Amino acid sequence: MKRTENKSPYLRLHIARSNDSRAFARMDIVAAVRREYDSGKLPTGSRLPPVRVLQHQLGVAKNTAHAAYEELVAQGVVENRQRLGYFVLARGKDRPTAKTTTPAMPMLLKVGSGVVRKAKGEGKNPIRLGSAFIDAELLPRERVAECFRAVLKQQGLPNDYDAQGFPPLRELIAKRLVKRGIPARADDVIITTGSQQALDVVTRALQKRSIATENPAYGIGKQLFEMNQMDVTGLPLDPFVGPDMKVWRKLLALNRPAVLYVTTNFHNPTGYSYSTAELMQLIQLSQELQIGLVEDDWGSDMLSYSEFRPPLRALGGENVLYMNSFTKKLIPSLRLGFLLANETTRAALLAAKRVATLANPTIVEAAVYEVVARGYYDTHLRRLQVELDTRYRACLDALTALMPEGVRWTTPGGGPVLWLELPRRVDLHAMTERLRENNVLLDARLKEWFFGTPHLHGTRINYAQESIERTRRGLELLAQEIRRELA
Amino acid sequence: MKRTENKSPYLRLHIARSNDSRAFARMDIVAAVRREYDSGKLPTGSRLPPVRVLQHQLGVAKNTAHAAYEELVAQGVVENRQRLGYFVLARGKDRPTAKTTTPAMPMLLKVGSGVVRKAKGEGKNPIRLGSAFIDAELLPRERVAECFRAVLKQQGLPNDYDAQGFPPLRELIAKRLVKRGIPARADDVIITTGSQQALDVVTRALQKRSIATENPAYGIGKQLFEMNQMDVTGLPLDPFVGPDMKVWRKLLALNRPAVLYVTTNFHNPTGYSYSTAELMQLIQLSQELQIGLVEDDWGSDMLSYSEFRPPLRALGGENVLYMNSFTKKLIPSLRLGFLLANETTRAALLAAKRVATLANPTIVEAAVYEVVARGYYDTHLRRLQVELDTRYRACLDALTALMPEGVRWTTPGGGPVLWLELPRRVDLHAMTERLRENNVLLDARLKEWFFGTPHLHGTRINYAQESIERTRRGLELLAQEIRRELA
Repeated sequence: MKRTENKSPYLRLHIARSNDSRAFARMDIVAAVRREYDSGKLPTGSRLPPVRVLQHQLGVAKNTAHAAYEELVAQGVVENRQRLGYFVLARGKDRPTAKTTTPAMPMLLKVGSGVVRKAKGEGKNPIRLGSAFIDAELLPRERVAECFRAVLKQQGLPNDYDAQGFPPLRELIAKRLVKRGIPARADDVIITTGSQQALDVVTRALQKRSIATENPAYGIGKQLFEMNQMDVTGLPLDPFVGPDMKVWRKLLALNRPAVLYVTTNFHNPTGYSYSTAELMQLIQLSQELQIGLVEDDWGSDMLSYSEFRPPLRALGGENVLYMNSFTKKLIPSLRLGFLLANETTRAALLAAKRVATLANPTIVEAAVYEVVARGYYDTHLRRLQVELDTRYRACLDALTALMPEGVRWTTPGGGPVLWLELPRRVDLHAMTERLRENNVLLDARLKEWFFGTPHLHGTRINYAQESIERTRRGLELLAQEIRRELA
Repeated sequence: MKRTENKSPYLRLHIARSNDSRAFARMDIVAAVRREYDSGKLPTGSRLPPVRVLQHQLGVAKNTAHAAYEELVAQGVVENRQRLGYFVLARGKDRPTAKTTTPAMPMLLKVGSGVVRKAKGEGKNPIRLGSAFIDAELLPRERVAECFRAVLKQQGLPNDYDAQGFPPLRELIAKRLVKRGIPARADDVIITTGSQQALDVVTRALQKRSIATENPAYGIGKQLFEMNQMDVTGLPLDPFVGPDMKVWRKLLALNRPAVLYVTTNFHNPTGYSYSTAELMQLIQLSQELQIGLVEDDWGSDMLSYSEFRPPLRALGGENVLYMNSFTKKLIPSLRLGFLLANETTRAALLAAKRVATLANPTIVEAAVYEVVARGYYDTHLRRLQVELDTRYRACLDALTALMPEGVRWTTPGGGPVLWLELPRRVDLHAMTERLRENNVLLDARLKEWFFGTPHLHGTRINYAQESIERTRRGLELLAQEIRRELA
């Protein structure tokens, strides 16, 4: 099929068969054009479909289409411009064609800017003390790339997808959970686009749109709840003392949210991890008040020895919804996490995932399967833990050596972040801006984390993203700015 | 760091420093354990954290931790089991540990089964006449795999992600849109997990949760609107005559939805494509009634010559939200689509995408960039169109030869699907079930497509997924069953 003809845009016409007929007749075409022309719907100068398009679309002979168009020429409706096609002639009372005057999209939600703010310092290799990410140098990019290549070589690029996720990966995840003391079946594992989609899927599957979570909360989680129009109960969390269960009980009893979402290890942004006793108290609360539990366990894999600590799901049984992610710990750009549901919840959660994304890219699921099945993931985690432990200790040493009186910090025992609490008279915003000018990036946007008035006054310190030397250099500059604020 | 010690699970404890102290003292550890023990929170027989864990977490000397534990032994709180660790002793009034008694997740939405139904015939190579998919044999799997390998080789596995999507891919998409007559900037392109996420993002960014769309509607879109608790206005679409704009105007004026979502080419499930005149009427309606327009253009790439037809976005200007997808047409498992927003809508749409999935896997975006930049995508589409055209004509021929009186079908002009309308006395469910037993799969679940009582009585016929011979064989069996129903 050659494509040598004139390429100017042409109209799409609707052409109907006359009643009871199986084939299109010349008059069907003529009538269709006339109807639209007479009602002023065909812009002057617009092109009719080429004859060969009509032939193809309607299955008519070339002569039929030609005859129809020539009849329209005879009727003064169109003109035949040689080798260019048939074009609509002006009518007496032509109205102008539509222009760019459709209404602006009405009533969009006003949430954040939606734009990822580029730090001014970026491009100059800033010291990043404020994120929750891990140094790319510590991540096994080449190992994971090798697994992508292996999938492409062994099975080729997958054509199909499974809405619930690549079955062998779900099998493998279930096996690993069993090892950690969580009874699990592959049927109950739902692969998601990172923890973020896991949380989205949970909130949108709830009929009663209410949730409780720690205050401060993970910032994009907070945005999610607000956009999903949930009633949110913020439960105050002081990372120096842990949750005050009396206060939590009172708030939960008052608001009766459908679920309680807790990040059991390395809560974001405080870095807090729950004690076993606290997890058991949560279970008791959930039983008493009939509140569902959702456990976000993204953090435990980064903490030495935490494979021996029972997760909330292990303590509370299969009604605890469990989520975890490979993303930050393996390669952020993979965006792969999962939910562990149970027989009662699986259908609703899977339906929520299907309406959200139908499924996620199979090649990524298959490659992560390889990474885990070959033992690369566990080898990586062990090395990562050792490195994070070292950086953690160095960070504690630096804080002890550098920070002025009145500054406190938590001791989460490893991982990527801790909470640094500052005297109230430190102006967090001004300090952060000055540090940015000195090429040190902090995140102290308390409003994005807290429901209501912040009960803490400080920031998350990341020691996983920069080398020990650079973290120490960043903390030196931070300490200097704090002293200046306190002076 | 060797890992030879006992691996039984241990408690996570919260240990606080005494006031004003920077280091942890032996008594801090003792006090922490006692407090939890005395309040009955430590299950009998549970293990205290190993000494080395305390050392590491708190930064205390080994002796300090040891001394604290030995004091607890002296107090009768724990016992030291040689080489196994320290274990909590029974108290007088111990309460049992929590068991699997957390409440079932309360109030989950009841939507569909969430489970992808496996057709009974599957595994026996059934003839699939009911889907909207394209024959995997027609898709360039090896070409796309080559692009994945090229990305891994040239730039390695990407570590980072861009919430809006891989910038070079957004640039390229914008350029291609400009070629099709749509002014577009890379800044206004948002990459999504297929069209499905594009639609999800649009609906969740709306403040007024109301939408209008064709009736019948794309099934999983309909589920999405229901789960997102939108008010939906169904606009009746008869694929044999097109939309009745008088009826549409009346319904839209009555319900005043925030947006009108239309699939302008190969509407699913009817296979209908709008004429240019109809698109212009939609623009006029949207202006009059101040309703936003959302154009789903997944279908035009499959239709020969349709690159010359103006999309709704080209006719209506930049306030028309435009979406398209590479997925079904390239490789379904890639799950990659995009939205074209404008300056006003971008922030809200991007915020909606971020709360949904943060970002999607960069490697897939980078590989699709390669596929398009190398010209593979356009080469593939041209070949695909020729093949679909051939299958379309063969399908029309088969229908004309095989179908009994009273059966009608649309002539969409190519692409993957058309609508087959049957006499009302045909029992669609019974017919579909009998065909399934004969290894032919149809989809005639009208309830999943229609709002209210279906005004059509038929099914979508796919001629893109099977060879001409197999499609004909499937249609023979279908015609046979229809005759049986009509007998």
